[in-house]
Amino acid sequence: MLRQLSAEALGTAFLLIGVVGSGIMAQTLSDGNIALALLANAIATGCILYVIIETLGPISGAHFNPAVTLYFTLRGEMTPGPAAAYMATQILAGILGVFAAHLMFDLPIWQFSTTDRTGPALWASEMIATFGLLFVIVGGLAARREAIPVLVALYITGAYWFTASTSFANPAVTIARGFSDTFAGINPSHVPAYIGVQIIAAIVGALTLPRLFRK
Amino acid sequence: MLRQLSAEALGTAFLLIGVVGSGIMAQTLSDGNIALALLANAIATGCILYVIIETLGPISGAHFNPAVTLYFTLRGEMTPGPAAAYMATQILAGILGVFAAHLMFDLPIWQFSTTDRTGPALWASEMIATFGLLFVIVGGLAARREAIPVLVALYITGAYWFTASTSFANPAVTIARGFSDTFAGINPSHVPAYIGVQIIAAIVGALTLPRLFRK
Amino acid sequence: MLRQLSAEALGTAFLLIGVVGSGIMAQTLSDGNIALALLANAIATGCILYVIIETLGPISGAHFNPAVTLYFTLRGEMTPGPAAAYMATQILAGILGVFAAHLMFDLPIWQFSTTDRTGPALWASEMIATFGLLFVIVGGLAARREAIPVLVALYITGAYWFTASTSFANPAVTIARGFSDTFAGINPSHVPAYIGVQIIAAIVGALTLPRLFRK
Amino acid sequence: MLRQLSAEALGTAFLLIGVVGSGIMAQTLSDGNIALALLANAIATGCILYVIIETLGPISGAHFNPAVTLYFTLRGEMTPGPAAAYMATQILAGILGVFAAHLMFDLPIWQFSTTDRTGPALWASEMIATFGLLFVIVGGLAARREAIPVLVALYITGAYWFTASTSFANPAVTIARGFSDTFAGINPSHVPAYIGVQIIAAIVGALTLPRLFRK
Repeated sequence: MLRQLSAEALGTAFLLIGVVGSGIMAQTLSDGNIALALLANAIATGCILYVIIETLGPISGAHFNPAVTLYFTLRGEMTPGPAAAYMATQILAGILGVFAAHLMFDLPIWQFSTTDRTGPALWASEMIATFGLLFVIVGGLAARREAIPVLVALYITGAYWFTASTSFANPAVTIARGFSDTFAGINPSHVPAYIGVQIIAAIVGALTLPRLFRK
Repeated sequence: MLRQLSAEALGTAFLLIGVVGSGIMAQTLSDGNIALALLANAIATGCILYVIIETLGPISGAHFNPAVTLYFTLRGEMTPGPAAAYMATQILAGILGVFAAHLMFDLPIWQFSTTDRTGPALWASEMIATFGLLFVIVGGLAARREAIPVLVALYITGAYWFTASTSFANPAVTIARGFSDTFAGINPSHVPAYIGVQIIAAIVGALTLPRLFRK
Repeated sequence: MLRQLSAEALGTAFLLIGVVGSGIMAQTLSDGNIALALLANAIATGCILYVIIETLGPISGAHFNPAVTLYFTLRGEMTPGPAAAYMATQILAGILGVFAAHLMFDLPIWQFSTTDRTGPALWASEMIATFGLLFVIVGGLAARREAIPVLVALYITGAYWFTASTSFANPAVTIARGFSDTFAGINPSHVPAYIGVQIIAAIVGALTLPRLFRK
Repeated sequence: MLRQLSAEALGTAFLLIGVVGSGIMAQTLSDGNIALALLANAIATGCILYVIIETLGPISGAHFNPAVTLYFTLRGEMTPGPAAAYMATQILAGILGVFAAHLMFDLPIWQFSTTDRTGPALWASEMIATFGLLFVIVGGLAARREAIPVLVALYITGAYWFTASTSFANPAVTIARGFSDTFAGINPSHVPAYIGVQIIAAIVGALTLPRLFRK
């Protein structure tokens, strides 16, 4: 279990380094061109997602996401004890990843985002984004397991653009991004609502997706 | 059949979310830089195409496109009844996908495009674009089936740039984009001509491609 | 043989549609931002290269390039008769592909480029670019055949940027681009020197690469 | 051994052509838009990395990086003699690659960078970047060997953005980039500190990664 939790920790930390670090770099260099910044941010996020899922998948299943862990727990493929350990590890490691990004970019380690991300449209976005992520994972498990790293990476790279919220789709990522007043940040007071719809999406996914993707 | 139609519906809806949603995001952020907007739009479309074909291919064949369904019907690989059900599902789900994109981006759900896309040059583009899409699918089926999701995704990402019409190449997508007065929209009065040449391309493809790609 | 020549013709025509068409689109939309235009041009070219090599490789070997055909002839893997037929087909089909791009973008079909591309630095670039292309193909044949479509696509996408000439690396492409006074064009009077160094690179490749990549 | 060293030489030279050449092209064309220049530079680097690892991996293991060679030597998978030959070859060939890039872009062959890259934040970046690169390689060896070319390519493409130093992560690349006063350059007096942290990262990797990725 320690090895699995190490994999979840390392992967989630690298995921947040990818998301937040590339956001900082993109914002710094893009001189107000937000489309260009988001393009770099989306590509870098897809790259790191592929890397961590391909390498760590065989060890921990490469969740890096409490909504994914919740899905497998609801489906009875994981028991509550290990699931809770997974989730706690993901949340903590995500925050440490944000700190590492701040360290590399010479920014104060401890900060809170002031970027507002709230309202029904963004919540609908996160609902669709998270359901889509689970759809991709469950569909990949049914169709072709080896495709999952590419599936998740490309789904999120695309979803940065086709959802209005840029697809957080991950409670650990959402919490961690609350700790960064940079491009990828989210005002901590808006975090709970995002997590709420992400959890609802996981429940909806658990009720519907296995029916579509039954073997 | 219900499961197949569900797959066609979910896939086509996600395809339109990808196309229209990323178009809205790109236009909003790119501040008049249309090349950058189209680049993001093309990449996001390629991403979602890969995802839906890889995951849903084993269930429904992942058509998401009446021109593709027409091709297989003309080739005798599908009977008219199921083909009609596929096409109706694709068209309806595509429109619902556009509505979902509007919902996420806080835009009026019900709208019609005012973007003119007409004239012989664009019709020639759609002819080549649709023929090329069928070429890629039929060629992939002959050469290496597992490559089809990547083939279609990369073909369309490229064809956004190398055809003058940005490659709709899909009657369901064309109809659905009529319902969105955003970056990806098309004036509904210009939809029928696009569909006409897409159908012609499917017929030309059915007459020529099997000869080239015979086993 | 007719089927092989059809494959070479279709592939090379699509390659030129990809290169020239995306160049026109990119230049039209990018409003003088040449880096952005080249990025779109490079990505679209990589996309179409992957597509045509993956689908047509099993039929004709997917040369689409007289320098590649020359390489295999020099290595004794192809006899001069079929090689000449391949080369003539590639050259003619490439020009037709340029005409198709002009047609789609509503430009005069018949035109000649006025873009100067000459001098020792660009010739050195084409030498390295063509040698690199052959290195990639021969290396892929030795290492992992199924990787060749991706190898060539990514090599050229990268080489648009890391060679000063943007890597024509293909006599048929070079000739065809002489017929287009658009982004991808080359002044016809500068075509022979490009072809000369491309041929030299093929000879150098035939003398050196099999030694490195012997089984 | 000569064949292996030839592969290391050719691969490392092409890697530096990729990094430095695309940096020059990007800077020349991007008209001060550094985000766009870095995006092109990152994509081109990922492309060439994929190409050289896929083709040359079966011959030399495709290190192209003294930190990687050091890692395998520390793990006892390589003896000091060949390791030293690898490292010397990588360093020399990297410099020759930079010269080739200068030649293609008609710049003085012999130059030294004046770009400052120093300070604890960048050193922390290189530490994380190099550790991440080894993590990707060792993880790929454990999870799925054929994925390594894509893993390394995407990791570096992403890490150009999510590390503050743009991920040199390679002593041979670092030394070679000291010889180019262009986009990718690094002031030679700042090279030793970069190499120092890259070596530390290799040692840390050798102590920790095999534990995580044990079979």
